[in-house]
Amino acid sequence: MPQNASYNAVQWDTDTLVLLDQRLLPKQLSYIRYQDAAAVANAIRDMVVRGAPAIGICAAYAVVLSALQHISAGADWRQAVLKDIDTLRQARPTAVNLAWALEKMSQLLDQPMTDPLAQLLLAAKAIHQEDIEANAQMARFGADLIEPGKQVITHCNTGPLATGGIGTALGVIQQAYRDKRISGVFADETRPWMQGARLTSWELQQNQIPVTVICDSAAAYVMSKGDISWAIVGADRITANGDVVNKIGTYNLAIAAKYHGVKFMAVAPMSTVDMDTASGRDVEIEQRPASEVTHIQGQLFTPEQVGVMNPAFDVTPAALVDAIVTERGVVQAPSREKMLKLLNK
Amino acid sequence: MPQNASYNAVQWDTDTLVLLDQRLLPKQLSYIRYQDAAAVANAIRDMVVRGAPAIGICAAYAVVLSALQHISAGADWRQAVLKDIDTLRQARPTAVNLAWALEKMSQLLDQPMTDPLAQLLLAAKAIHQEDIEANAQMARFGADLIEPGKQVITHCNTGPLATGGIGTALGVIQQAYRDKRISGVFADETRPWMQGARLTSWELQQNQIPVTVICDSAAAYVMSKGDISWAIVGADRITANGDVVNKIGTYNLAIAAKYHGVKFMAVAPMSTVDMDTASGRDVEIEQRPASEVTHIQGQLFTPEQVGVMNPAFDVTPAALVDAIVTERGVVQAPSREKMLKLLNK
Repeated sequence: MPQNASYNAVQWDTDTLVLLDQRLLPKQLSYIRYQDAAAVANAIRDMVVRGAPAIGICAAYAVVLSALQHISAGADWRQAVLKDIDTLRQARPTAVNLAWALEKMSQLLDQPMTDPLAQLLLAAKAIHQEDIEANAQMARFGADLIEPGKQVITHCNTGPLATGGIGTALGVIQQAYRDKRISGVFADETRPWMQGARLTSWELQQNQIPVTVICDSAAAYVMSKGDISWAIVGADRITANGDVVNKIGTYNLAIAAKYHGVKFMAVAPMSTVDMDTASGRDVEIEQRPASEVTHIQGQLFTPEQVGVMNPAFDVTPAALVDAIVTERGVVQAPSREKMLKLLNK
Repeated sequence: MPQNASYNAVQWDTDTLVLLDQRLLPKQLSYIRYQDAAAVANAIRDMVVRGAPAIGICAAYAVVLSALQHISAGADWRQAVLKDIDTLRQARPTAVNLAWALEKMSQLLDQPMTDPLAQLLLAAKAIHQEDIEANAQMARFGADLIEPGKQVITHCNTGPLATGGIGTALGVIQQAYRDKRISGVFADETRPWMQGARLTSWELQQNQIPVTVICDSAAAYVMSKGDISWAIVGADRITANGDVVNKIGTYNLAIAAKYHGVKFMAVAPMSTVDMDTASGRDVEIEQRPASEVTHIQGQLFTPEQVGVMNPAFDVTPAALVDAIVTERGVVQAPSREKMLKLLNK
């Protein structure tokens, strides 16, 4: 998957950003080409592309697209690009990598540049490359934590589709499988968007890693059978105290893991760590459309006008987390002090 | 809903059993007429009708259908009916009400009967009537446990569609709402079959009780907001020690409830209590077809050939249960001793 992947979630092709339309997977491998930053913001909101690191990379390239669009218009191009950056930032409010990547690009805009287009593209490519390398490092760190002999469980999708490289949690899982530390993977289907059933199962199949898809609510049942050693997930934001903001259902999974003595690992690059936010309580949780819950493949299957709550994320408190794995190192039993130590490493 | 229901899950109409096809709800109110016991067994397996108490009632009527079919054939009709009873028993192995109702009908078959058809029908109608009365009594007992002021959360469907009367857990919820003890209900959608999203939400709407549908994996998120006092569910079997076997996901919900200090109530008639089975560990958990997980509305949305585990039920250990509510009384913090005391009440 890393080296010989037959698909790419996010690619830069001369003046064009090419995204794999993840809404159609696994049925169809279909790419959409973007030359307009606002269209990329829509693609992020509509989940053509998803996964916190992938979104960050995507947004960085979108800033290049914006510069390409506006730079010919003359002196005010920087203002126009900053406006696009605002639009991009609002596409998904919870994932911090998006804001992080846009901040990096903004800082560059504030500086005098001799060749802005080339320099912005270089910066975007650096963000992309950095993620590839972070993925590989985290895979190594995470796999080393897993005592051999059992299976693991994961939630949502955290593979190449969600990142620039081999993935965060799914990178660890691939490495652990190659190291013969695990014999297979349970994948939560991950309602409502079915990232687990559609994407994680597909990515694991591509790598010949045994995968068993379960309904999210069967996780505790599976854990009670005693064959799971770790629950391994990604993160959309890790706050200063080590709380993990991730796909809705992660918190459920972490509580069930604690109850069964299954360990819980969150795998995310340093760009996911948000030391400016004290704890998960302070994070805005994106509420997504009710139709994601009430409709499947365009068909309503609940009664009409039914009340729905559809939070996209939840907060797993640090107390339920055994390890946070970043490219800079591992934090066990996270706390504010340990997170600060990692940051200053 | 009890008195003025505009629908009936299970009805006897002279020589015919009439079932509401729950697979088509809430889109379509469509009834199927049965005069063949084996066809009723298929209806139970295929979930035209579901819900432990409703299945029991249904099976009792199916025995009457079987007698109607075979009694004209002469002396051996009892053997033919017993064969049908075996077929019916195997339709859903986990729910104990099915076995319980069939056992009652079998016992009658063992006795000399002056008018077998009339007597079997009377017995089936008594099982149905008993469930109606048990529902009403449980609703009262359960509602009285709920301190006023918050909302409750439920899993699967336990209303008139799943029972003979106003329901088990949903009976308690209706009563609690009428008593102004609760302001509304969160309904887990209940993957894979969506009993919560399709059936519970619909039944609550019919009763003008505010309902919010959530993905099963959002339950912990909702509980963390502090607005839930009780998780209230039905049961397919309650073992001698007070373990609760119920729809997959109940165990997840109970663990999350315990973590948040939300109380957990299982509501089920005495016919659900199985004192012959020591604990939940001894219960055969029905595994249902993978296609329930991989397909939605007939369409495959996972990769082909993906591994799936689809347990229909799970076991919530007694330690996570605050109250078992039956028509005979309430057992708080259940144990084998307390269950025996209830049985001998």
